[in-house]
Amino acid sequence: MAYELFYWTGIQGRGEFVRLALEEADADYVDMAREAGDRVIFEVLKDPRTPSFAPPILRDGDVVVGQTALILHYLGRPLGLAPQDERLRTWTHQIQLTVTDFVAEIHDVHHPIGVGSYYEDQKPEAKRRAREFREERVPKFLGWFEGILAGNPQSEGHLVGDRLTYVDLSLFQLVDGLNYAFPRLMHARRNEFARVMAVWDAVRNRPRIAAYLASPRRLPFSQYGIFRHYPELDA
Amino acid sequence: MAYELFYWTGIQGRGEFVRLALEEADADYVDMAREAGDRVIFEVLKDPRTPSFAPPILRDGDVVVGQTALILHYLGRPLGLAPQDERLRTWTHQIQLTVTDFVAEIHDVHHPIGVGSYYEDQKPEAKRRAREFREERVPKFLGWFEGILAGNPQSEGHLVGDRLTYVDLSLFQLVDGLNYAFPRLMHARRNEFARVMAVWDAVRNRPRIAAYLASPRRLPFSQYGIFRHYPELDA
Repeated sequence: MAYELFYWTGIQGRGEFVRLALEEADADYVDMAREAGDRVIFEVLKDPRTPSFAPPILRDGDVVVGQTALILHYLGRPLGLAPQDERLRTWTHQIQLTVTDFVAEIHDVHHPIGVGSYYEDQKPEAKRRAREFREERVPKFLGWFEGILAGNPQSEGHLVGDRLTYVDLSLFQLVDGLNYAFPRLMHARRNEFARVMAVWDAVRNRPRIAAYLASPRRLPFSQYGIFRHYPELDA
Repeated sequence: MAYELFYWTGIQGRGEFVRLALEEADADYVDMAREAGDRVIFEVLKDPRTPSFAPPILRDGDVVVGQTALILHYLGRPLGLAPQDERLRTWTHQIQLTVTDFVAEIHDVHHPIGVGSYYEDQKPEAKRRAREFREERVPKFLGWFEGILAGNPQSEGHLVGDRLTYVDLSLFQLVDGLNYAFPRLMHARRNEFARVMAVWDAVRNRPRIAAYLASPRRLPFSQYGIFRHYPELDA
């Protein structure tokens, strides 16, 4: 039975982290809202047993799971994208939870006052927030990933163990999004994060990921998603 | 062997969610930085195998786990604060991950521009953000918890199943902190979230929690933590 993914149409958003795992594993899945419209999301949000706070949501038979990192933790083993070892599996989940934190900060750069008003109504505040984000937060997060890669005794090319896991796919997505949103920053600092950039490059060249990225299923980055390119925030 | 908790001295912070679980379970634990100073945190952050991004961090023998929600997921079963059923255990973790999201938003109300500058340097921005927070975000999050309690087929007094789990303790902490930081808001809207308030009241009256709250181990809320009382943000 196919996995059912529920996420807003029109943007990559947080759903993309799940999509990349499903695509890399060549899993049988249906992107439900793209098939039937965003209204199906409102229906699954009302699941009486496990009503998620927000999408993405995964339905697997009668199991309904929300929260991006938890969906990946749930899918990791069946998709062959998580370590077998239980401790390493927990560590993989911990890394993904820090991806979640970083994604929230990346989003809030262009929405420091809140999601209820447009970027255009919070531009001065966004510009102030972007400075600390560029100078402190991006180096701290990417430096943390770089350190994990450098310290992984089994492979410098993977965050966990000696083969691809879902967190490598998520690191690709972070870098790909930051390259789009903050091209000046990422170009200027690329040498500090050589191992991170190598993971990005290796993932995008994997056959299934490359095919996915070239397909219409991969929506382009835009000014509606998490990663937005406002040149004034990348100055 | 005692659990070792690593969290900054001087504030409750995110460490408090872990502390409440350890206290309720009467677990053998050492609050390491309070014993030996914040420098021990910097040492454990450098753990070569699983270097956490930030505290809280739990050390259990040679296992080191970071991320508040993951620490609680790890401790839940051994402390008797998580369901035995695997699906309900995943659902409990999902609820805690949404607590994590809410905590980040609660913090960012007084720091919309970033953690690198003081509240005093971002007061106008905080006031703007607080309005959406009070009017949209708090009702949305507390309404979500209220709905889970109303829909729990086993008990309206617990978020999951028919007995206390760590997410009930975390819901207590959320309400306790919001009562401190936003007393006007919480008083005005208390009737909308009657079940949530009942969990808060039941948890604070549990014998071990009551004893903990009365002890010097429970630090008071202050203007340095996640929950801060600035009257201008509660107006």
